[in-house]
Amino acid sequence: MTHRAGRHFLQIPGPSPVPDRVLRAMSAQVIDHRGPGFADVGKRALDGMKTIFKTDQDVIIYPASGTGAWEAALVNALSEGDRVLMYETGHFAAMWKKMAEKLGLRPEFIAGDWRGGADPDAIETRLREDRGHEIKAVCVVHNETSTGSVTPIAQVRAAIDAAGHPALLMVDTISGLASIDFRFDEWGVDVAVSGSQKGLMLPPGISFNAVGAKAMEAAKNGGMRRSYWDWLDMKAINQTGYFPYTPATNMLFGLNEAIAMLHDEGLENVFARHQRHGAATRAAVRHWGLEVLCRQQGQESGVLTAVVMPEGHSADAFRATALKHYDISLGNGLSKVADKVFRIGHLGDINDLTLAGTLTGVEMGLRKAGVPHQSGGVDAAMKVLDDTPAPGIAAE
Amino acid sequence: MTHRAGRHFLQIPGPSPVPDRVLRAMSAQVIDHRGPGFADVGKRALDGMKTIFKTDQDVIIYPASGTGAWEAALVNALSEGDRVLMYETGHFAAMWKKMAEKLGLRPEFIAGDWRGGADPDAIETRLREDRGHEIKAVCVVHNETSTGSVTPIAQVRAAIDAAGHPALLMVDTISGLASIDFRFDEWGVDVAVSGSQKGLMLPPGISFNAVGAKAMEAAKNGGMRRSYWDWLDMKAINQTGYFPYTPATNMLFGLNEAIAMLHDEGLENVFARHQRHGAATRAAVRHWGLEVLCRQQGQESGVLTAVVMPEGHSADAFRATALKHYDISLGNGLSKVADKVFRIGHLGDINDLTLAGTLTGVEMGLRKAGVPHQSGGVDAAMKVLDDTPAPGIAAE
Amino acid sequence: MTHRAGRHFLQIPGPSPVPDRVLRAMSAQVIDHRGPGFADVGKRALDGMKTIFKTDQDVIIYPASGTGAWEAALVNALSEGDRVLMYETGHFAAMWKKMAEKLGLRPEFIAGDWRGGADPDAIETRLREDRGHEIKAVCVVHNETSTGSVTPIAQVRAAIDAAGHPALLMVDTISGLASIDFRFDEWGVDVAVSGSQKGLMLPPGISFNAVGAKAMEAAKNGGMRRSYWDWLDMKAINQTGYFPYTPATNMLFGLNEAIAMLHDEGLENVFARHQRHGAATRAAVRHWGLEVLCRQQGQESGVLTAVVMPEGHSADAFRATALKHYDISLGNGLSKVADKVFRIGHLGDINDLTLAGTLTGVEMGLRKAGVPHQSGGVDAAMKVLDDTPAPGIAAE
Amino acid sequence: MTHRAGRHFLQIPGPSPVPDRVLRAMSAQVIDHRGPGFADVGKRALDGMKTIFKTDQDVIIYPASGTGAWEAALVNALSEGDRVLMYETGHFAAMWKKMAEKLGLRPEFIAGDWRGGADPDAIETRLREDRGHEIKAVCVVHNETSTGSVTPIAQVRAAIDAAGHPALLMVDTISGLASIDFRFDEWGVDVAVSGSQKGLMLPPGISFNAVGAKAMEAAKNGGMRRSYWDWLDMKAINQTGYFPYTPATNMLFGLNEAIAMLHDEGLENVFARHQRHGAATRAAVRHWGLEVLCRQQGQESGVLTAVVMPEGHSADAFRATALKHYDISLGNGLSKVADKVFRIGHLGDINDLTLAGTLTGVEMGLRKAGVPHQSGGVDAAMKVLDDTPAPGIAAE
Repeated sequence: MTHRAGRHFLQIPGPSPVPDRVLRAMSAQVIDHRGPGFADVGKRALDGMKTIFKTDQDVIIYPASGTGAWEAALVNALSEGDRVLMYETGHFAAMWKKMAEKLGLRPEFIAGDWRGGADPDAIETRLREDRGHEIKAVCVVHNETSTGSVTPIAQVRAAIDAAGHPALLMVDTISGLASIDFRFDEWGVDVAVSGSQKGLMLPPGISFNAVGAKAMEAAKNGGMRRSYWDWLDMKAINQTGYFPYTPATNMLFGLNEAIAMLHDEGLENVFARHQRHGAATRAAVRHWGLEVLCRQQGQESGVLTAVVMPEGHSADAFRATALKHYDISLGNGLSKVADKVFRIGHLGDINDLTLAGTLTGVEMGLRKAGVPHQSGGVDAAMKVLDDTPAPGIAAE
Repeated sequence: MTHRAGRHFLQIPGPSPVPDRVLRAMSAQVIDHRGPGFADVGKRALDGMKTIFKTDQDVIIYPASGTGAWEAALVNALSEGDRVLMYETGHFAAMWKKMAEKLGLRPEFIAGDWRGGADPDAIETRLREDRGHEIKAVCVVHNETSTGSVTPIAQVRAAIDAAGHPALLMVDTISGLASIDFRFDEWGVDVAVSGSQKGLMLPPGISFNAVGAKAMEAAKNGGMRRSYWDWLDMKAINQTGYFPYTPATNMLFGLNEAIAMLHDEGLENVFARHQRHGAATRAAVRHWGLEVLCRQQGQESGVLTAVVMPEGHSADAFRATALKHYDISLGNGLSKVADKVFRIGHLGDINDLTLAGTLTGVEMGLRKAGVPHQSGGVDAAMKVLDDTPAPGIAAE
Repeated sequence: MTHRAGRHFLQIPGPSPVPDRVLRAMSAQVIDHRGPGFADVGKRALDGMKTIFKTDQDVIIYPASGTGAWEAALVNALSEGDRVLMYETGHFAAMWKKMAEKLGLRPEFIAGDWRGGADPDAIETRLREDRGHEIKAVCVVHNETSTGSVTPIAQVRAAIDAAGHPALLMVDTISGLASIDFRFDEWGVDVAVSGSQKGLMLPPGISFNAVGAKAMEAAKNGGMRRSYWDWLDMKAINQTGYFPYTPATNMLFGLNEAIAMLHDEGLENVFARHQRHGAATRAAVRHWGLEVLCRQQGQESGVLTAVVMPEGHSADAFRATALKHYDISLGNGLSKVADKVFRIGHLGDINDLTLAGTLTGVEMGLRKAGVPHQSGGVDAAMKVLDDTPAPGIAAE
Repeated sequence: MTHRAGRHFLQIPGPSPVPDRVLRAMSAQVIDHRGPGFADVGKRALDGMKTIFKTDQDVIIYPASGTGAWEAALVNALSEGDRVLMYETGHFAAMWKKMAEKLGLRPEFIAGDWRGGADPDAIETRLREDRGHEIKAVCVVHNETSTGSVTPIAQVRAAIDAAGHPALLMVDTISGLASIDFRFDEWGVDVAVSGSQKGLMLPPGISFNAVGAKAMEAAKNGGMRRSYWDWLDMKAINQTGYFPYTPATNMLFGLNEAIAMLHDEGLENVFARHQRHGAATRAAVRHWGLEVLCRQQGQESGVLTAVVMPEGHSADAFRATALKHYDISLGNGLSKVADKVFRIGHLGDINDLTLAGTLTGVEMGLRKAGVPHQSGGVDAAMKVLDDTPAPGIAAE
């Protein structure tokens, strides 16, 4: 049997399932990215992304995946040899640090246990010690995709300010943006990094920087040698809706559709929906008798839930069983937690019944794989869904 | 909020959700239906449908919905004033009878209670009485879409033979074909009627007759005045892969893709999947303390399950609640059972997790609508799914 | 080589190339045709088609091809044995007559030479002779697809009125509608027949009747035995945007998109564009030294141009050569003119450069097939395009 | 009028029109790029691209546009301060040089007049002078998109060898690959750069490096600080069909379809088709009395033809007129030749009749814009098409 009936459940923490509307928008014929008809496409994308980042400052769109936007943030705002303070929230924080090293920065890592967001107090303490202001940037991950923990960005900003430290605040919100609340201007973020294949509901292929005035100034006066990632080249020509080199035109078609869908639903409704689905998922996990990886209350992600596998059981074997029998893709544990956790994505274009199908897939997968658990997790999730008002649906 | 996040659950007993592969196949550019490239498209569709009907005899494809194929069956094989024996299995049997009357036939209806398939014994009894062989055809509905009951076609054939009666056996398998077992040649059916938007996983717009030699002979020598529906015009030119008038070309593109998908999965796997999902659904319904409309054991449909609403509760109000809150479409009760039953479609391109989402939608809808029930139906369904081997998946 | 680079030129007189926008609209997921969301789809289609037929009276939409809508017109408004006056404008007029015979009507055919539209004077003369008003309908083809000649419908109406004859005026505008001007109400048409795959730019699969009050009254009081085609069943439920049986939902999605596109361009611009392309095509044909089949000035079609092949040359061999070498589909000669004419479609979603490519394909095909002609036809066509203002484009 | 009837003629030298088959392939639902189903997608893309580059060595695929692949070539194989020899064939050669400067290389530019490919003799002369082998790479543009001139790569290789110089040969074949012949291994290229939106018929968004053993060795031992572009990270994990960071999954779906189409047609047929269309276009240009920008015989591109505007006429005004009146996009003159030349793209998924439509658009545009020219260019092009056997079509 090569064909499997029914729709695959793509419940990894990104790429999230791409809505048909977006796929259709992307399947329009390509146009001349230097012709008069393109300016509107480009402007809508650039202006639209400002509403998503909640910023009036600059947004840059790269034909690249999120990893490229990480690099762009570093090479524009920082210079070789710069010290940067990073926080080990999980695998992606570690990957960003590794990239910083490859690019010649001197990252310093505040160790973490992968079970919560970055700790603002620890950041403040370290910055206070840095009297010479050698640290040029604080880099944190908003929603750590490998663990399902959220860093309180506003508090990190407050910590930097409290320390009276001039370091730039750089935030990876690749998997957070457009799923959980993010406020670039209000929170005083200097550089944000994001990607297309998570809350924005697109396939991977374009990524973003939001850039505040202070970071842009840093880029003007310094930064590393760069060309493809150069903010200044981008900013100059973006004013007119065009790009300095060929953009990923059809991805921009899809992006404009996705932005319209997000505003149609209402960003705050989108955030509430993700919170509600996160809560329902955690209720199921706890009912099963399993442990949620994130153990900082209030920092559990609305995007994904990482689940700790009972001792003696392989998370990857379980995931393979679930995929084989129930046609559901779950996220794997990465590096330190490889084979020890699995991750349930509940982000992007999903609704209550998709979540119910997902949790059923997990529960039946646990049963099929012989993982000890208490059945009834889907019921427990339903209860949460029932008790929490669904965003955007008027009460009867 | 005008946009709803996530995929709508279209769980009515047809149209069933159209797989992306089929939608993509249908979105190819139209071609010249008289050009050399068309013959292959036409032949594949006509030959492919023979494998689905399990027949070596003729298949006719109409650019029309299933209702048109009902009409085609009657006007080709029968003549005005002919007496036909029909069986009241439900709303669609009643509609076919009404059509027969409009077309000038004299249908006779064996009354039924809408809670099971046609009774072969009653048919045999009636045919034995018809010594003069005035009855020219016995018309039954294979899978009654309004009730979720299945008529045992092989036994109806046996009943006709036992009565030594020459009447044609005409079967409406609009919602049965490609979901539950149907064997045109082996069961001795003379004319079968089907449509595209059920087990064949297409949008509505094309429909089918399978025609046995005896019925084709009847058409040659008689039938009513007809043009669009004429089997003989069709059969003549179909030999070459072409049609006497413009076919619904893009629907044929989709049909060929759907047939390939059905054989990829394996027809017997498809049937087993529907049976398993029917059983799981009934387990949920019974757990909720609700009644399945079909009460003939062994005749419950693998295509849909009609559920009797508790006295004093409106099925339509419940369906509206489920649609509003959980974005799921359920089938309504038709004519005699309007507002008294709702129907859960579990046909076509679905899998275990879609079914779980569906049953969750029903259970949460019952709760939201204040319909008394025992919670835990989804768990009960999961148990059945777990206990029944999934077709086509090798045991671990 | 199985793949041919580039886009096929589908320049037959229907199906015309389906625009990407329409294909994308049709590839949306099917919805419940009895659910609350469908009413808007149905109403937009029904109301939209009134603007295309230019009528305030009834429009009926069938899941069927144009041939079905022919049958619908006859079985609703006429009764077995009725005499109808038809006019032999070409192959399709002859096919409609053949259908009338099969359905038990007594059509009378005014002979024509296939080189012009129906002659109003001949119709008036015949009707005046019919003192007893035995003739119940006059049936003419607006745009004869087999010949490229247009019948002046307003003049046919005037002829009927001048004769003081009560016969219904029935018009086949399958290939005329939405390409050349048609005014149901203003011209006093009683029944019009059309299809989706011509000016409406859809694939084949749905078709239309526009029905005036007098014809609807005739249907109420008579007509033939009918069910699928019954106007009254349709009209009753269409008020709410729904249909008495399953409609071809995805075709309606496409229809609504196509109607929007037609109004976007402006119907009068659409008509002018077709006229201009017809004129340019005829200039090319004449430059080549070939003969346009239609020889009634002012009746040449804006939809297609049928070209007479020089004596001793096979039109079909030429078409095969053009298809093989230049990947262009041209229309064949039908019945009486088989192999003697070929037809160039210039309808639907095409523009000046598509037409230029088309005429180049014809000219190069003539050369490759060894058909004597004077080269430079494309230049001659360009001259016409250049001299005729393009509709909807403001002068510089 | 906001909607324009018919298909836009996108005749710029890239992006080229994306075939429907590719758009459909790209519109499949995204999959888990770390799941078991992805390996096949990745391997097919990587192996397929080797057949297109004609290499058995490494191919790297970036989620980036061609500009990114330029950067990747430089940062992997070269080190800051390295001297590189570049050749001013036109705008894109100049842009690549500018990038090299931004990245800290010391490019040396052999001046050119933009009217031919790079001159191997000049390269050999310069290399012979470089006794100390300070020049680390020779960078040339295979098909200069701004001028329509082709550099003879095999001769450049021969020149380097004749000079006994160890410099790497780096070739930008962004707009050449899959349209005109390119042989990475046979021609001894060390690094090639390409993109998706030209001969590969995809939208922009992915780009490529082909990397020979010597260049890979250089990357291992040096290169600049890099992360996103790092060949070694890519190569390591590509073995299994996966990527070190999220690939542009849906673009890879499209790429695999496009590669299949190219092999279906036959690469040599593809090249011959482009040559033939180039020749036909030049015949039209010369007939009009205009000048082809490339004046090196044998170096005229099969991908595009740049046309010199007569003195006193604005190329951009002409292009705007053609776009407005004939819905055709033509390429603009870039930098040095801005407003002085326009470019006709004849690459990718086009055929004879598309070319004819294109040339008609140019000729009618010239007329409408009042640019002096001799009419009949399309005829002249037809003559060439007629006289040159079409690749892949058997003679009659």
